[in-house]
Amino acid sequence: MRAVDIIMKKRFSPQEELSREELAFLVGGYVRGEIPDYQVSAWLMAVCFNGMTFTETKHLTEIMLNSGETIDLTGIAGPFVDKHSTGGVGDKISLSLAPVAACLGIQVPMMSGRALGHTGGTLDKLDSITGYRTNLTVPQFRSIIKETGYAMTGQTKEIVPADRLLYALRDVTATVESVPLITASILSKKFAEGSESLVFDVKWGSGAFMKTPEEAEKLAQSLVQTTAAMGKKSCALITDMNTPLGNRVGNFLEVEEILECLGGTSTAGGTSAAGGTSAAGKGPDDIMELTCALGSWMAILGGKAEDFASGVEMCRRVIASGAAMERFLKNVKAQGGDPDKLLADRGRRRSPYRREIKAGEAGYITAIDAFKTGIAAVHLGVGRNRTDEAVCADAGIIFRKQKGDRVQKDDIIMEIYGKDEQCFSQALPLLESALAFGPEEPEKTPLICKEITAI
Amino acid sequence: MRAVDIIMKKRFSPQEELSREELAFLVGGYVRGEIPDYQVSAWLMAVCFNGMTFTETKHLTEIMLNSGETIDLTGIAGPFVDKHSTGGVGDKISLSLAPVAACLGIQVPMMSGRALGHTGGTLDKLDSITGYRTNLTVPQFRSIIKETGYAMTGQTKEIVPADRLLYALRDVTATVESVPLITASILSKKFAEGSESLVFDVKWGSGAFMKTPEEAEKLAQSLVQTTAAMGKKSCALITDMNTPLGNRVGNFLEVEEILECLGGTSTAGGTSAAGGTSAAGKGPDDIMELTCALGSWMAILGGKAEDFASGVEMCRRVIASGAAMERFLKNVKAQGGDPDKLLADRGRRRSPYRREIKAGEAGYITAIDAFKTGIAAVHLGVGRNRTDEAVCADAGIIFRKQKGDRVQKDDIIMEIYGKDEQCFSQALPLLESALAFGPEEPEKTPLICKEITAI
Repeated sequence: MRAVDIIMKKRFSPQEELSREELAFLVGGYVRGEIPDYQVSAWLMAVCFNGMTFTETKHLTEIMLNSGETIDLTGIAGPFVDKHSTGGVGDKISLSLAPVAACLGIQVPMMSGRALGHTGGTLDKLDSITGYRTNLTVPQFRSIIKETGYAMTGQTKEIVPADRLLYALRDVTATVESVPLITASILSKKFAEGSESLVFDVKWGSGAFMKTPEEAEKLAQSLVQTTAAMGKKSCALITDMNTPLGNRVGNFLEVEEILECLGGTSTAGGTSAAGGTSAAGKGPDDIMELTCALGSWMAILGGKAEDFASGVEMCRRVIASGAAMERFLKNVKAQGGDPDKLLADRGRRRSPYRREIKAGEAGYITAIDAFKTGIAAVHLGVGRNRTDEAVCADAGIIFRKQKGDRVQKDDIIMEIYGKDEQCFSQALPLLESALAFGPEEPEKTPLICKEITAI
Repeated sequence: MRAVDIIMKKRFSPQEELSREELAFLVGGYVRGEIPDYQVSAWLMAVCFNGMTFTETKHLTEIMLNSGETIDLTGIAGPFVDKHSTGGVGDKISLSLAPVAACLGIQVPMMSGRALGHTGGTLDKLDSITGYRTNLTVPQFRSIIKETGYAMTGQTKEIVPADRLLYALRDVTATVESVPLITASILSKKFAEGSESLVFDVKWGSGAFMKTPEEAEKLAQSLVQTTAAMGKKSCALITDMNTPLGNRVGNFLEVEEILECLGGTSTAGGTSAAGGTSAAGKGPDDIMELTCALGSWMAILGGKAEDFASGVEMCRRVIASGAAMERFLKNVKAQGGDPDKLLADRGRRRSPYRREIKAGEAGYITAIDAFKTGIAAVHLGVGRNRTDEAVCADAGIIFRKQKGDRVQKDDIIMEIYGKDEQCFSQALPLLESALAFGPEEPEKTPLICKEITAI
């Protein structure tokens, strides 16, 4: 077998599938240092142009998955279901979804990433909780799942080394954008962490990786069909990421928003007083809708709900009862945080560098561009451009008005917190340009555009 | 400037041209060791899919050309015109064309290649002439052009190092087949050797690199238009390479065939008797036709002929007069050979390992497949599969019958000479399968299908 023949087949005969053996020779050989990077990068580019079938993508996923360690969850009763989001601005859904799913009897082994470019990162949000550890060892990860029904951590370096190597090569060879390569990267990591079935939040729009619903649907189909080819069940929701999710973009600011969604107070941690369930589920509509929709699908895949409507109802109930909030705080404690301090911190942790953006005219807000908001957030210190940059836990944006709201001149639209005084010169013009106004109320667009399943 | 952005532009925005600066950054940087091969191979693959404009190809050609030394022919009166063939089976035209053009006052600075795969190599044919040197130094190359009007040598390693580096990378990354990359490779070498204008023999068919006339035309257009973009004149002939050229495939066997074409004897070398001009131009029709057509175009480009018909007539005349033969032998002497020994060797240098292929039935020969013949020739020792293999000067095939000939059962169709006794087991079945017979005389197909010029 020769690498050049495998590249040639992908270049000239895309209708012929590369066999598992051919993919293992090339990609496995690359990971073992036997195949040089210049052959792999030529193959990657040929894949970008000619694609891969679901069977080829399945083989690539399995080869990558088997390139390193996988998390052994035997001893914990399943079902194990996780969620993957393709990334967006203000996307804090993992933080509410994991405790909701855990309350329904789903075990959620969640390995997340950090903010990069305009998109936020779940780990950075969790790290803003004082004491919360996101660098769990495998035994800790296991025991926290066992104790609280879910655990949140970063990917260990023993997991899917092939993905790290391939991603580093793709990053510098303009081969990141490829549906099958993205699919194999996502699935290999998700299955390595111990998930049995998966829910995907595939975002489209200015703040998403995929710019159109059609592109998002292609990725969703690839994720769902490749998962099916691997003998596993999944569901993908295509969701709108033209506008930031929720009313807040930031790290601790988004944690606060989740506390709002889950009820505002709790009995967990053993020290705080019983929470009022009347306060539960006060979060923004989009966060609540997406949490319950993804939670319902996790319940369906885990065999805990019969259908979508009853799954949604179950999610609403565990939020309204305060059970999800309790579970969230229990996890905070298990991962090293202090639930009481967290609750006490609410509303208090704000960077001292503050600005506001007010409406320059009366009218309707017709758009808040997610991409520009995301880039502005990087300037504010919420995110980063390079993986080695630090983020600021207490920076971010609070939207006091949303798309579709009618505003009067001088109404405050955003409260903005920056990491320092200098950052506003770049962030403010971006945030101003992210806003659009008009005389008419904009049409309501659905948050969840489509669902694609193979179960 | 970043290499990844240049790759991205070629991948996603093929309608936007890469600038000279971008190409120099990437390709020049690669040659200087500043850009890693994995980025160049990804870019090469993107070029294979998205192509390059003639302007981009011109810039790439000039960047490659300037990566090393170029031959300085100042002091020799021009015009300097060379021919490039895309390679075929039995293609010995350089050997007859160079002396013919030289007789018309064209200076031919010819750097040629060796046999590889099913295609033959001019250098291997010349090397079969005892004493003939094809590894000239630049001063020798210059002085032999000055003395005999043409010189034939291999490419020195100082010439276009970018092409050697890029070709080695393309060879192992399945990026050889690309019209603009082939164009830049050909033109950078041809212009580095000192040519002012060029004639291209772009072959199509089973024995050619391009399998259809359409593919050949694409390459021809690219060669001619890129040459025009560089401010130089050229002409490309699209020619048929489904059948081997001439009646012989081999190394010394093809030199003999050229001697036949040029007249059979000569006055050159100072020792042999005056040659009979009546014997001139006795070569196979296809060799004569192609030599005169390419020679006519060299004369037109060099300002020595007014039009194609008069150029052809001029070529015929220098062949018929024996002048071309005389020039050929003068060059043989200048490059280290012995013209008398060469003429004496005719008909005598045959490998002792001999076979014949006879007609199994009566009928017309409807095809002699050039590709199968070329592969058989490699087995016989005429060519090579790897660049480090030796060839056998005295092996090859003499076609006693040609496509279109009527044969009787047991007529000898081929005389076959192998490098050893073992080689026939692979070569003979291939040669037998290269032959097709039928009851009807096959239609005559034109050797020269089309001409493409920009002058």
